Amino acid sequence: MEYRKLKDLDKDDGAVGDDIESLRGKALSGAHTNNMATLGGHSIDRAKWKRKSIVTLALTVLTSSQAILIVWSKRAGKYEYSVTTANFLVETLKCALSLAALLRIWGNEGVTDDNRLSSSLDEVIVFPIPAALYLVKNLLQYYIFAYVDAPGYQILKNLNIISTGVLYRIILKKKLSEIQWAAFILLCAGCTTAQLNPSSDHVLQAPFQGWMMAIVMALLSGFAGVYTEAIIKKRPSRNINVQNFWLYVFGMIFNAVAIVIQDFDAVMNKGFFHGYSLITVLMIVNHALSGIAVSMVMKYADNIVKVYSTSVAMLLTALVSVFLFGFHLSLAFFLGSTVVSVSIYLHSIGKLQR
Amino acid sequence: MEYRKLKDLDKDDGAVGDDIESLRGKALSGAHTNNMATLGGHSIDRAKWKRKSIVTLALTVLTSSQAILIVWSKRAGKYEYSVTTANFLVETLKCALSLAALLRIWGNEGVTDDNRLSSSLDEVIVFPIPAALYLVKNLLQYYIFAYVDAPGYQILKNLNIISTGVLYRIILKKKLSEIQWAAFILLCAGCTTAQLNPSSDHVLQAPFQGWMMAIVMALLSGFAGVYTEAIIKKRPSRNINVQNFWLYVFGMIFNAVAIVIQDFDAVMNKGFFHGYSLITVLMIVNHALSGIAVSMVMKYADNIVKVYSTSVAMLLTALVSVFLFGFHLSLAFFLGSTVVSVSIYLHSIGKLQR
Repeated sequence: MEYRKLKDLDKDDGAVGDDIESLRGKALSGAHTNNMATLGGHSIDRAKWKRKSIVTLALTVLTSSQAILIVWSKRAGKYEYSVTTANFLVETLKCALSLAALLRIWGNEGVTDDNRLSSSLDEVIVFPIPAALYLVKNLLQYYIFAYVDAPGYQILKNLNIISTGVLYRIILKKKLSEIQWAAFILLCAGCTTAQLNPSSDHVLQAPFQGWMMAIVMALLSGFAGVYTEAIIKKRPSRNINVQNFWLYVFGMIFNAVAIVIQDFDAVMNKGFFHGYSLITVLMIVNHALSGIAVSMVMKYADNIVKVYSTSVAMLLTALVSVFLFGFHLSLAFFLGSTVVSVSIYLHSIGKLQR
Repeated sequence: MEYRKLKDLDKDDGAVGDDIESLRGKALSGAHTNNMATLGGHSIDRAKWKRKSIVTLALTVLTSSQAILIVWSKRAGKYEYSVTTANFLVETLKCALSLAALLRIWGNEGVTDDNRLSSSLDEVIVFPIPAALYLVKNLLQYYIFAYVDAPGYQILKNLNIISTGVLYRIILKKKLSEIQWAAFILLCAGCTTAQLNPSSDHVLQAPFQGWMMAIVMALLSGFAGVYTEAIIKKRPSRNINVQNFWLYVFGMIFNAVAIVIQDFDAVMNKGFFHGYSLITVLMIVNHALSGIAVSMVMKYADNIVKVYSTSVAMLLTALVSVFLFGFHLSLAFFLGSTVVSVSIYLHSIGKLQR
């Protein structure tokens, strides 16, 4: 449960991209990219497509390895560390990586309007909102387990897919074709099918409150994701590392609040790093990198791509677990994977026919 | 098990349509319809669409009530009647209904080239083939249970959907659009998902022979269906009741052979009608009418419509069973139904974009 909470916070979160950014060099930094886009042309489209593919692939691989770390850690035994401190460290690491990326860019390009850290109040004022939404969502998570068991919650989390699609349409005013909507419903049904297990049916007996909370949480998470995309895309030429620095600074602040609310006594009595192990550190690093990948996907692709990417990661995790942990794949998994694959195909077909 | 076999034979079988035919009057008899089609025009298209809808609806309702009769009969206790005699009576009833429809048509229109019963050898020679294929398939059915349990067989039967689609494409050379293919895969995955139960996973451990037999049976059943459509559509102006008369005459002959092979001793010792009850009679009538509806769908629509119709019937059966027998719907059922619904939507969308 502990690990799942950590995972939730991160997967939905926006994040700075130092590693991938620097990997692709200054040609792909925010400002430059935007200039390229305005020039148009085939090779530029291709470069954009390539960058979009790389960040999507990175998100998929990081998310699925994240889930594998969770399984591994569960097998290794229960770790009694404080989840809120781990989340705080994830935000801090992402913040540090953003700054490191910025230092490198300043060294190469000098300080410009697009990559300077100081920002107007108008620009910064919106950044606490996603972090606040995630905090509320994570607090709600403690209460939903009064109504829904853990496998049921895993099933209900797939409502995020639908809420993201609906809010993406409403808030960002981007249209999906009819086929893409059909594909999105299939993605949700396919992911849920792939996760079915003999106790999944319990969720149908969950009380009304449980369903309402799950829907509210899905809306909060979807809204936070879509809002983050809106913030990041509002200033396309602004360097992503600056945008993420602000995102993560507020992430740090809100997670510090969470430490005080939830784990103050534990941290005071047992210490900040109580219960940490190698695997905890690996998970923190993985979560930070996944967060960075999410942010990159928000900047260079969109929330729809993010949802597809994390869904495929879920399927990949199950496949890899077969080899690593000797898991058995269920018939439901095969059927769900088939539906998800058809969904991806339809999404790409639907785009052409828009 | 007994009832399922009866059901299988019929659902896949071609059949004459006296009731629906006479319901719509002579304006819709085979010959007339074809003349109408060659004239073209909006009201004719509408009449054809209406006829297609009615036969499809009839097939859906009859198939789902058929499954409900099966559940009802199982609840009422096991009936020890001979399945082969019941199948023989179904064929005989369909044959009788074809003749009754023809008598009526002859009375109204007189005997014409299109509705006369005497047929050339060239025309008749193909009619035994579907009946023979079904006989082989039904005999195989006795052996597959050595490798696969009953719930597993129910799951594997969904391979029929794919085999019908593939053979429809190859034999009838009719094209499905990319979206319609995607929809067809979804239909298969959705139907299977809706039927998932805790013991479904056993099918994954079924031996190679079990899978091979299931695939062969799916191909036989798909081939028989597609071949029946080919025969019926080869002579569009020929009255459907004549075509079905020949189809069912051979059905009677092959089922008589089946009685001799499988139930000769039982029939000789206990009598032909041993173990029959009211519900057996109802099931025979229902199977005959369903068979008639299948035939109508083959003539006025196609195998793809038939597959969609019987799939929807499966879902309807489950819904009706909730009210009639207090069944509980599983989460898998909801997910499968969602996927099937999207599949139907995509199939209709795909048609427009062909």
